[in-house]
Amino acid sequence: MDFATIIGIFSGVGLVVWAITSNSGLEIFVNIPSLAVVFGGTIASTFIAYPLTEVLRVLAILKNAFFAKSEKPSGKIKEMVEISTIARRNGILALDKELSKIKDEFLKKGLQMVVDGIRGATINNVLQLEMDNIWKRHQLGHQLFKDMATFAPAFGMIGTLIGLVQMLADLSNPGSIGPKMAVALITTFYGSVFANLLFLPISIKLKRRSHQEALRMQLILEAIKSIRLGDNPRFMEEKLTKFLSRAERMKTSKAAESSKKKSE
Amino acid sequence: MDFATIIGIFSGVGLVVWAITSNSGLEIFVNIPSLAVVFGGTIASTFIAYPLTEVLRVLAILKNAFFAKSEKPSGKIKEMVEISTIARRNGILALDKELSKIKDEFLKKGLQMVVDGIRGATINNVLQLEMDNIWKRHQLGHQLFKDMATFAPAFGMIGTLIGLVQMLADLSNPGSIGPKMAVALITTFYGSVFANLLFLPISIKLKRRSHQEALRMQLILEAIKSIRLGDNPRFMEEKLTKFLSRAERMKTSKAAESSKKKSE
Amino acid sequence: MDFATIIGIFSGVGLVVWAITSNSGLEIFVNIPSLAVVFGGTIASTFIAYPLTEVLRVLAILKNAFFAKSEKPSGKIKEMVEISTIARRNGILALDKELSKIKDEFLKKGLQMVVDGIRGATINNVLQLEMDNIWKRHQLGHQLFKDMATFAPAFGMIGTLIGLVQMLADLSNPGSIGPKMAVALITTFYGSVFANLLFLPISIKLKRRSHQEALRMQLILEAIKSIRLGDNPRFMEEKLTKFLSRAERMKTSKAAESSKKKSE
Amino acid sequence: MDFATIIGIFSGVGLVVWAITSNSGLEIFVNIPSLAVVFGGTIASTFIAYPLTEVLRVLAILKNAFFAKSEKPSGKIKEMVEISTIARRNGILALDKELSKIKDEFLKKGLQMVVDGIRGATINNVLQLEMDNIWKRHQLGHQLFKDMATFAPAFGMIGTLIGLVQMLADLSNPGSIGPKMAVALITTFYGSVFANLLFLPISIKLKRRSHQEALRMQLILEAIKSIRLGDNPRFMEEKLTKFLSRAERMKTSKAAESSKKKSE
Amino acid sequence: MDFATIIGIFSGVGLVVWAITSNSGLEIFVNIPSLAVVFGGTIASTFIAYPLTEVLRVLAILKNAFFAKSEKPSGKIKEMVEISTIARRNGILALDKELSKIKDEFLKKGLQMVVDGIRGATINNVLQLEMDNIWKRHQLGHQLFKDMATFAPAFGMIGTLIGLVQMLADLSNPGSIGPKMAVALITTFYGSVFANLLFLPISIKLKRRSHQEALRMQLILEAIKSIRLGDNPRFMEEKLTKFLSRAERMKTSKAAESSKKKSE
Repeated sequence: MDFATIIGIFSGVGLVVWAITSNSGLEIFVNIPSLAVVFGGTIASTFIAYPLTEVLRVLAILKNAFFAKSEKPSGKIKEMVEISTIARRNGILALDKELSKIKDEFLKKGLQMVVDGIRGATINNVLQLEMDNIWKRHQLGHQLFKDMATFAPAFGMIGTLIGLVQMLADLSNPGSIGPKMAVALITTFYGSVFANLLFLPISIKLKRRSHQEALRMQLILEAIKSIRLGDNPRFMEEKLTKFLSRAERMKTSKAAESSKKKSE
Repeated sequence: MDFATIIGIFSGVGLVVWAITSNSGLEIFVNIPSLAVVFGGTIASTFIAYPLTEVLRVLAILKNAFFAKSEKPSGKIKEMVEISTIARRNGILALDKELSKIKDEFLKKGLQMVVDGIRGATINNVLQLEMDNIWKRHQLGHQLFKDMATFAPAFGMIGTLIGLVQMLADLSNPGSIGPKMAVALITTFYGSVFANLLFLPISIKLKRRSHQEALRMQLILEAIKSIRLGDNPRFMEEKLTKFLSRAERMKTSKAAESSKKKSE
Repeated sequence: MDFATIIGIFSGVGLVVWAITSNSGLEIFVNIPSLAVVFGGTIASTFIAYPLTEVLRVLAILKNAFFAKSEKPSGKIKEMVEISTIARRNGILALDKELSKIKDEFLKKGLQMVVDGIRGATINNVLQLEMDNIWKRHQLGHQLFKDMATFAPAFGMIGTLIGLVQMLADLSNPGSIGPKMAVALITTFYGSVFANLLFLPISIKLKRRSHQEALRMQLILEAIKSIRLGDNPRFMEEKLTKFLSRAERMKTSKAAESSKKKSE
Repeated sequence: MDFATIIGIFSGVGLVVWAITSNSGLEIFVNIPSLAVVFGGTIASTFIAYPLTEVLRVLAILKNAFFAKSEKPSGKIKEMVEISTIARRNGILALDKELSKIKDEFLKKGLQMVVDGIRGATINNVLQLEMDNIWKRHQLGHQLFKDMATFAPAFGMIGTLIGLVQMLADLSNPGSIGPKMAVALITTFYGSVFANLLFLPISIKLKRRSHQEALRMQLILEAIKSIRLGDNPRFMEEKLTKFLSRAERMKTSKAAESSKKKSE
Repeated sequence: MDFATIIGIFSGVGLVVWAITSNSGLEIFVNIPSLAVVFGGTIASTFIAYPLTEVLRVLAILKNAFFAKSEKPSGKIKEMVEISTIARRNGILALDKELSKIKDEFLKKGLQMVVDGIRGATINNVLQLEMDNIWKRHQLGHQLFKDMATFAPAFGMIGTLIGLVQMLADLSNPGSIGPKMAVALITTFYGSVFANLLFLPISIKLKRRSHQEALRMQLILEAIKSIRLGDNPRFMEEKLTKFLSRAERMKTSKAAESSKKKSE
């Protein structure tokens, strides 16, 4: 799990708890019916909006986004340069025994097609199709959590309205007005916390993740094109480093030099 | 009807009712004039905005989205592989007697054109045109319910404003202020519930559904292209599985193997 | 005028009036200064934003959208099939005397160019240009009313703020606080009603209308292409019905059959 | 300056002033610190967001949008037809002495390139590039005022919050609560008026203006293409009138007829 | 640092401080827990949403956007014209020794490829790829601060809700209600100030900056194309000035004339 995520979750929840406990007990902010309305209502609306299979699929993507280590593009480039060097020295067919060592499904698939001698345009089409569909699936997850971030504050307000209406309908005991309003507002509080500390950040994370995946796959696509055309590994490497930010490039330059030495 | 939808509707409505009844009677939240303003106003604005024919068309799409079982892409792929195998073994004209067995209108139409020997570009144009128009019609439904989700809270606020103005104009009886405000707020409550538990989830569902339909039709388009060009059914199957998510692919692999055996 | 629009306007206004009169007199909701601030302010901002010629043009489009009967695509298809049949039987030049009978300006223009023997690419360019510009003009109307739907609630709030500030600046007479706040809130009420029962629905209607117009013109474009190339009228009809929804197609099938008989 | 703009500004400001003075003196709505927070804060945020050169450039565009008379497309068409007629009768080189009479920079540049015998594709590229950059600059102005329309109500709320916090921190004098809240709310009032009667309408005006400029340049582009290819001036005129709305076309038809007579 | 930015930050903060101190002491607006909730919460949500590497990368972009002097396009054009003149007079290979003097990494890279005789299409591809990736990285920064501008007011509201609930839960001491509400509202105040005087302007600045960078790189791309094709430096200059606004062009014309003299 990304270190920043852990810091974010702990510090975010910690801050809210600290802000509460520095002035009162935490118990006045624990209200099960309020929690049920906000969380339950959000889930209910999500289940009306999305088929069960899509909800489950998003959970899988989510686990992946938080726990699977995102591979660095610089490492990927190194791998591609090594493959390209082998292909250049020993011919494309020599890649056949390398295939079993490759873990990246997308890359493996693409190289397999190169080894099988399938036409370049066809390889491009097939990989492009896969990229489009992975992109769409990630977008689905991004959209689902964005919708949840819309539902949560709405159900927060619905819960608060329920409490306010009940309070206003019976003002016979003036002393209970304050506490009743306090309880009513807790639902809005829950809705806002869920949306801004959970659903919205997750939605953004999935969007960023889909951009990273797209970048990775575009990089592989370019590399496979170069390998197929028999480009010089150095030139390919230079082209691929275009995908890196300036900061990454500096860090990469040393690794690249050592990998160049190997390839020579 | 999708199981998640049923859970969603029941748990959503149930939660709200439970949240109300745990603190007061349900009757203080039943107010026919408030309901009339929110629901009636939303319908009225929708009827000004959309021609009658489009409203009716959306109702048909809606029924379809909730009750018609969405066909799984994996099942569709199996069907396409079988058709492709027949075309490969017995020639394209052999598909003519298969056509009557096919229920999918879009697929039938496309294969009919292949059998009739119509040019590939023309087949593509005609099917693409159909896809575009089905897409536009689904977008219409998505947009109509999104607009309703905008109108409902607005009329909720209009109703609340009516109640507040009436209350403020006559403050002679202080004891009635609370109950009057309670009634005024119920309209906002209705507007929020309608928007977030009904119109917005339906709007999202129709958007998702249009994506699924587009996927299905794109899959068929690719398959028809392969059949027309006489591609190897196995290669076509591999290409089509690109449309499936990783999870679906694993589930499909067994079905695919059995279908392969049949086709060999 | 579309029947749904009439129902919408009457029921919408009726509902609001009914909701008011069921609890108080209508007169406390009539406030000329409030009306002036909301309606006048909205018009003023619109006049700063849009040149006079564009405002007038939108009024013309508006009249058209509400009162001109939108032609059904199915009727248009029937007309195109008849023209195509004549062209096929008697040659394209035979269309020359048909031209005077055609009321649709866009279709007439297109056919005239076909009869004049102008090159296909040029015809396409000219008609496409006209389509783009009609589309842009409709978008203008859609956008203008959307902007008005933004201005109206804003001026509603401005009016309410004026009333609140005046009330708060002089609290010497506690008995007048209620009625003064009531009057202040009426401006927000007006802004919300104008936006949601007038400007927003009209904006959506103009957007839908522009989609319908685009559909009609695309249909004519396709038909003219077919006529120019001498396509079989039946094949053309089948292609054109792609523009219809499933519901319309069923209704059309009978009309189509009778028109086919004529063309045979 | 456009007549509608003058009406809009005067009636908008007049309405607000009238609404205020009909119930109280104008002086309770004049509050220099509030004005400073809203206007100053908006300008401050704008200066952080945009480089000084861009702010100045937008002021120039703004002056142009409000004071420079927007040329009518119909007049432009007449001009183009005259030029085309000269080119047709006396050859393209005859345009050389006409160039000095042309005031429109974009048109002049384009015709100069035609006279210089530069290749059609190059002319198109150069003019297209100019169009894109003019478009981007107009978009900048549109966006800057849209951002100001976001900042103004935000600083209005910030000012109101400052006043509210100060009032709530010292409730010792109950009699001053009302006036203090009144002053606090004036900031929100200013923010709303600035946004809706100034920044938002200006933003929309600049957007419309950029559309008009784009239309004008597209029209010139088409005309230059026709002149270069030696099209019949009448056919060119017909093509160019596609850019006009129906209303403008009717008005134009007479002018066009007279210009046709001249060209014959 | 851009002069307008400094003015903006100082005047913005100054205005808010002045507005506060003109009516009360600054100390009632200093509240560390409120600050912690708003700023800490915003950072926490950002860290959940974005991987640590991306947050750090954005900080680098930010430093650059505020402190690195943005190069003027007119200066860039002058540089390109000089290079083009050398290439025209002494041949493209003569550029080789000029390369070491060029500081602009993007330009250097492009010219190096021209000198190395790499094919035009390849040069275009490589530079386009670099442009796309720089664009995406700038978009990331823009989006990150836009998200922070969404989180800040949300945590402002969360903090206010915490304060309100605590106040309402214990109304035993009426005298403390005012000050407690004051403290609660300070969090909303912080959220609004952070969003509108910090995060939103920075987000816009990064968006503008990415547009400027794109413009600069597009200009270089055009220039390299011209140099490669051996265009006349004057014609190239004219083409490049299309990227300048009218105001810049006038200022440039003199510099251009002097540079022309040199090139002759």
